[in-house]
Amino acid sequence: MPELRKDPVVGRWVIISTERSRRPTNFEPAPVVKSTGFCPFCPGNEDKTPPEVYALRPGGGPPNGPGWRVRVVPNKFPALQIEGTLDRRGEGLYDKMNGVGAHEVVIETPDHAVDLADLPVAHVAEVLEAYRARVVDLSRDRRLRYVLIFKNHGANAGATLEHTHTQLIATPIIPRILQEELDGSRRYFELKERCVFCDIVAQETAAGNGRRVVATSERFVALAPFAPRFPFETWILPRRHDAAYQMVADEGELLDLARLLKDVLMRLNLALDRPPYNFVIHTSPVSDGDLEYYHWHIEIMPKLTRVAGFEIGSGFYINPTPPEDAAQFLRGITLEV
Amino acid sequence: MPELRKDPVVGRWVIISTERSRRPTNFEPAPVVKSTGFCPFCPGNEDKTPPEVYALRPGGGPPNGPGWRVRVVPNKFPALQIEGTLDRRGEGLYDKMNGVGAHEVVIETPDHAVDLADLPVAHVAEVLEAYRARVVDLSRDRRLRYVLIFKNHGANAGATLEHTHTQLIATPIIPRILQEELDGSRRYFELKERCVFCDIVAQETAAGNGRRVVATSERFVALAPFAPRFPFETWILPRRHDAAYQMVADEGELLDLARLLKDVLMRLNLALDRPPYNFVIHTSPVSDGDLEYYHWHIEIMPKLTRVAGFEIGSGFYINPTPPEDAAQFLRGITLEV
Repeated sequence: MPELRKDPVVGRWVIISTERSRRPTNFEPAPVVKSTGFCPFCPGNEDKTPPEVYALRPGGGPPNGPGWRVRVVPNKFPALQIEGTLDRRGEGLYDKMNGVGAHEVVIETPDHAVDLADLPVAHVAEVLEAYRARVVDLSRDRRLRYVLIFKNHGANAGATLEHTHTQLIATPIIPRILQEELDGSRRYFELKERCVFCDIVAQETAAGNGRRVVATSERFVALAPFAPRFPFETWILPRRHDAAYQMVADEGELLDLARLLKDVLMRLNLALDRPPYNFVIHTSPVSDGDLEYYHWHIEIMPKLTRVAGFEIGSGFYINPTPPEDAAQFLRGITLEV
Repeated sequence: MPELRKDPVVGRWVIISTERSRRPTNFEPAPVVKSTGFCPFCPGNEDKTPPEVYALRPGGGPPNGPGWRVRVVPNKFPALQIEGTLDRRGEGLYDKMNGVGAHEVVIETPDHAVDLADLPVAHVAEVLEAYRARVVDLSRDRRLRYVLIFKNHGANAGATLEHTHTQLIATPIIPRILQEELDGSRRYFELKERCVFCDIVAQETAAGNGRRVVATSERFVALAPFAPRFPFETWILPRRHDAAYQMVADEGELLDLARLLKDVLMRLNLALDRPPYNFVIHTSPVSDGDLEYYHWHIEIMPKLTRVAGFEIGSGFYINPTPPEDAAQFLRGITLEV
């Protein structure tokens, strides 16, 4: 059983995989599956993954067979284990609990050769709907407090399988940076009675401003944040205050988000020659319901520079590209529509 | 002039290099200087660096000439600029200030072909003394609040020059993770009237415990932390409570630290085939003097796994190697002394 352990100083929880322990000789980088090799995410190989927990099959058909357009399966090598109790306990001054949680993979398309940015807008919206449906389902598990949705695209961004996919980790704790955002935005609200993200959207889109705006849609804004850690870091925020991703209201809103997400990924692809990238959906804890001080958003981080351990070890980032320059460049990209 | 900008939600300061802005085409990784190529850190090339701010010349001799054993110079491409005023200011809801600070390089040895772990203990102590002297000197600058000492070893850990060196960045703000440690250890002290790091040292070295101890010396302990983010992450802590690195008492203490640091680096080299690594010295802010709740230490992080942006974007780490296994393995290494 993996363990969740808490650093006693900063309160950061980490997952320690006690089962798949890696010895010193096991640290060669995991190979990326080649286009020509066997792929467990391709149609026809449905029996090579654990049984699906969600699938979109427009033409119908039985589970775990072909005919799907989006498919969600448990990770075959999960970081957390769905069965069991938390068994919270101490070890002297330390705190730990069992590594209970869900680790799922959203296979975004049957087509091995394309990326999320290449899919039609309606298909991207179906992927976003799969995220939503899984969050709603996992929210019913009272042991779980957070559902983290993230995408590693490209080997240098940590992807170990080439077939385009998103991951979802549901945890009994709140990941460190999300807790910091929750704390920071609550303090801001206590001071001002306003959501800090609503204020950011208002300031960035005010008339005469817009230097950091990358693209907009009816209901969402994509912008380069004021203090980005990484070159070309781009956030997508809903214009309307909503604490949680799964509260995306209707199909129209999902389509609008899909359009802007695809737009931004295409701009990054054209500007940076299809870079490896990560995105993470920052949303409120599932146990918290609707918070007036928190505002969900997507953080997209192209992987262009090496992150030295020093930056991880100090939390101090040096970004060689001002966000105003990055936004101007991305705005200037002409997309074929 | 570079800028220091603060994220309005989590309060994290980043350096934005407004001068050396990188356009999308400039992101090819910086080449590592080959052993045979020109090296600005080698003896005879002293005029290829900015004038030295510290040097150890056992045989005497003029500054900026050969004959040194340890040499500290300003970084030729500094992330922060030493001249100027902070000029703290707002931009709507955002906060920023000028990127004032120091960025120096500690050239650990004239010998291009060796690493810190290969130097004799007395020479490692001289490197540690150079760190101390620079912190003491930079502490006199009232604009600066923190001196961050860190080492990137190997291209995959972010080193851009091969000749073994340490970097030092002095900043007018406190880096994020250090602020978190300060906050966390202060809360612990308020609750218990004890230093959390002293408690960690006591628990880890208690009789019958020691599963996470890697090595010890008279005055220091090297251990795998209870909740490490990375495989084989190793911390070195002084047994005696001291808030600040520069308070290392005497030559004997520096020698003792040098012995243990070399010991740990040699174990990592033997266990992991000379891995790239980073270390960061965590110490109290220079403006704070001696804190009863904070305890300086060194965090050493071998770079064995790819850190996905997701981990940086969520603060959530999955570590495949339990620290007990890592410590046991490192303890079992036989060092030729």
